[in-house]
Amino acid sequence: MNRKISIGIAGLGNIGQGVARIIESNRDKILKKTGIELDIRSVCIKDMQKKRTLPTDAYLMTDDYNRLVDDPQIDIVVELIGGVDAARDLIQKALKAGKHVVTANKAVMAKHGEEFFRLAEINKVKINYEAAVAGSIPVIRSFDVSFISDRIISIIGIINGTTNFILTRMSREGLDYKDALKQAQKLGFAEADPSLDVGGDDAAQKLAVLSRIAFNTDVSLDDIYYEGITGIRPVDISYACEMGYEIKLLAIARQEKGRLEMRVHPALIPKSHILASIRDEINAVLVTGENIGEQLFYGKGAGQLPTASTVVADIIDVARRGEMFYEYDRYEIQSIDDLKTEYYLRFDVDEMPGILMQITTVLTKHNISVMSLIQKQTDSHVLPVIITVHKTDEKNMQDAFKEISSFDFVRSSNLMRVL
Amino acid sequence: MNRKISIGIAGLGNIGQGVARIIESNRDKILKKTGIELDIRSVCIKDMQKKRTLPTDAYLMTDDYNRLVDDPQIDIVVELIGGVDAARDLIQKALKAGKHVVTANKAVMAKHGEEFFRLAEINKVKINYEAAVAGSIPVIRSFDVSFISDRIISIIGIINGTTNFILTRMSREGLDYKDALKQAQKLGFAEADPSLDVGGDDAAQKLAVLSRIAFNTDVSLDDIYYEGITGIRPVDISYACEMGYEIKLLAIARQEKGRLEMRVHPALIPKSHILASIRDEINAVLVTGENIGEQLFYGKGAGQLPTASTVVADIIDVARRGEMFYEYDRYEIQSIDDLKTEYYLRFDVDEMPGILMQITTVLTKHNISVMSLIQKQTDSHVLPVIITVHKTDEKNMQDAFKEISSFDFVRSSNLMRVL
Repeated sequence: MNRKISIGIAGLGNIGQGVARIIESNRDKILKKTGIELDIRSVCIKDMQKKRTLPTDAYLMTDDYNRLVDDPQIDIVVELIGGVDAARDLIQKALKAGKHVVTANKAVMAKHGEEFFRLAEINKVKINYEAAVAGSIPVIRSFDVSFISDRIISIIGIINGTTNFILTRMSREGLDYKDALKQAQKLGFAEADPSLDVGGDDAAQKLAVLSRIAFNTDVSLDDIYYEGITGIRPVDISYACEMGYEIKLLAIARQEKGRLEMRVHPALIPKSHILASIRDEINAVLVTGENIGEQLFYGKGAGQLPTASTVVADIIDVARRGEMFYEYDRYEIQSIDDLKTEYYLRFDVDEMPGILMQITTVLTKHNISVMSLIQKQTDSHVLPVIITVHKTDEKNMQDAFKEISSFDFVRSSNLMRVL
Repeated sequence: MNRKISIGIAGLGNIGQGVARIIESNRDKILKKTGIELDIRSVCIKDMQKKRTLPTDAYLMTDDYNRLVDDPQIDIVVELIGGVDAARDLIQKALKAGKHVVTANKAVMAKHGEEFFRLAEINKVKINYEAAVAGSIPVIRSFDVSFISDRIISIIGIINGTTNFILTRMSREGLDYKDALKQAQKLGFAEADPSLDVGGDDAAQKLAVLSRIAFNTDVSLDDIYYEGITGIRPVDISYACEMGYEIKLLAIARQEKGRLEMRVHPALIPKSHILASIRDEINAVLVTGENIGEQLFYGKGAGQLPTASTVVADIIDVARRGEMFYEYDRYEIQSIDDLKTEYYLRFDVDEMPGILMQITTVLTKHNISVMSLIQKQTDSHVLPVIITVHKTDEKNMQDAFKEISSFDFVRSSNLMRVL
């Protein structure tokens, strides 16, 4: 039996316009496939004066999102205004008013997701947010439905398209960080202010959202250790390449025996690893579950149509089955200090005798065992010393790294983890 | 609010036992996450005398599946008996009795899927079959939910683990087909009678199931052109490798302007293509949609726990939202003769003068333009001539191939398509 579902959209930027266009041009197709007739009833915009090209002029237009919340005819509120505070206020009010919510807003989901889930459960509605992480890749829904009876062991994601694009350009074309960033900005893969992307904040927010549903636990942004890619230089990439690695910004979450480890940082990935082949602005998420084994999802992480298409799928999904149940599991959050992994170190040193001895002495003192050490002649008086070391504790490694970095002969340095 | 859902399982082989074990050991977790209490009420087995290790002895046991259909307390029938005729009978009866159905049976879905969809719609129930294609990879559900508002352009899948394992061994270890098959059988990746896998039937059935939901149209198995991998020799793999290709058994479906092309055959894939890196028994499906762009899914295509875990997810999904709507789109089915692609040809020829002239004369007569031609000296008097040609029509290519193959100097030959 066919049902009509009325939608209120808050925010009519790039994504909002895409959502309206997809709904209008696919209404019949969606009705045929689902028995649901989607009706955009009302749209909330910031500036009523601004001219827009809309697929129809039948929408009620307002600049006050409370009108969507107060309209008893609206079943689903689509939050596309972005940011945290206003978005949170709107989502809270909509859920309390018994309306389903669909959002593409990773920042508000990372910060207030748990609160929304509780409100949704109490009010017998649902909040869908697939587009908040990795654009059109159906990873949230897979955790929510397909992998629901499995125990997830780990998530390893390349979930920030900007940094993946920059690192790919640095690796492929030998560009330095600044030029690669400029290229990304020119092509629309990086914002004018790229700090949230290149600093790792964006990936950390997405990892919080992913971890919450994958491990069915509450996650605070403060629980996630993160680093960005601004310290990576072409020399790191070329030495990594020589040693058989690609460098990617990874978001990693892994549970073991009630402990949850979450971290975002650049990592060296063996070239034979499937994640090493994820290039340009593409996103990928590698999920490992007890029953399902390894699963990779790969696709466009952003863009108007992939994201808008995902928002519309969320709308249809919530219209089909709109109730939320949840009760969290508890994990102890593992500190980054307790991480045990392999490391890559670069020290740019003045050319003088005895340097390698001083460096290796510090490593030996910390019981850190060297896997490989490369020191090559260059034209300048500053030489890069590249070291990879066997598994050791993060805390121990950081102590040794700081000690070596503080030598007078060290001009600059970099530490990265190996996947 | 919590709800209890009662399940009847027909068939208690490897998958059925896995389903029972996952449900029993995750009951509380599933309840917490979904508000649904799963209760296995009844199990239908073939031989009542056979001893089984079940997680509990609380199940009603029967050897007549009609008992599941007739039991008014059962909400969901899980069909795991396999084969076509009995499975079809059970599924039909269960749907008519107003019960949801979950199945992992690709053969019955490929052949009778449309009939089941209509029965489900009429009886306001749902049939879920994610495990029928590519094991635990959530590709059916993605078409059903995540990509529902998009128009799918193409599917390219490596969806038969047996053939992918065999081709990987042939490529990696230089094994010939028979030895690779033996290895696959020893490791449990191939059946004692492997004909359905290596002949392409299995992949064709899965492609029928995938195409039906991806393109929202009815698909008959007869519409699908298919070939297997038994004609591939190590020499094909090594020349393909030399020219920069891997050989995989691909299942391809593509729509353009109301025409639907569906085919299963070994194909040469450029090594830089993501599908070239899918190894061993792993499955992968590359989906291209108008809005979402390219999406890859990758994971285990078979095995007890991945498959059982997917069946349980299907059970939970159907319990959460159990109605089916559908109305098909219509496509004209494109004949394989109308395919336009690049080809790889191998002719094993007697060593004598003028052979290349005779071969290329036939190609020229058919307006087929050569991309590369390799003829190498070997120890024997039979030399392989390896040719790749630019895009041409299948019909035209087959005519030329037959003409060349019929020359007296041609001992054996092979034709493969390039992706």
